[in-house]
Amino acid sequence: MNLFEDIPENLPEELMEVLAESSNVRIERIVSDGHASPSDFWYDQDQNEWVLLVSGSAVLEFDDRKLEMNPGDHILIPAHEKHRVASTAQTGKTIWLAVFF
Amino acid sequence: MNLFEDIPENLPEELMEVLAESSNVRIERIVSDGHASPSDFWYDQDQNEWVLLVSGSAVLEFDDRKLEMNPGDHILIPAHEKHRVASTAQTGKTIWLAVFF
Repeated sequence: MNLFEDIPENLPEELMEVLAESSNVRIERIVSDGHASPSDFWYDQDQNEWVLLVSGSAVLEFDDRKLEMNPGDHILIPAHEKHRVASTAQTGKTIWLAVFF
Repeated sequence: MNLFEDIPENLPEELMEVLAESSNVRIERIVSDGHASPSDFWYDQDQNEWVLLVSGSAVLEFDDRKLEMNPGDHILIPAHEKHRVASTAQTGKTIWLAVFF
């Protein structure tokens, strides 16, 4: 199993796959291809999310700031901290690893 | 916070840092510099471990097999599946991301 493999060339929607999970944890690979959250859409999650940008680039938006994410960058988004994906790279895929817990 | 930063040049021991945790999950960065498990040492953990090789390379050893790990490779090691690190790259650091849950 490799994070860089099995990625379709065309991704009309973001690709989300569960890599491992238990009753209280879910590890996902997310592949974006220029996708962003709809304007005015904010995630408001019941679980904490730790997210790593593996390749590509993105901008995360919070209430009070925007955060550019490059390979290796990671951040803990506490439960109910509202956030959205302002943008992801227009060229090439952006691969995220997310742990919800 | 970036997985590739804040790595000392000299690592007499493996470097382990908790990046995020809760009562039932722990996310760690592990940096190896040619380190391997002592011969005859086997990990036998109470928690599941999902591990991703981020950079470098390594060989994991299980009862019945050896598994070469290259960047992007990931594996779920169920609780109490005995395993050891047979080797890590002799040149350059090997960075792991491990989720214990």
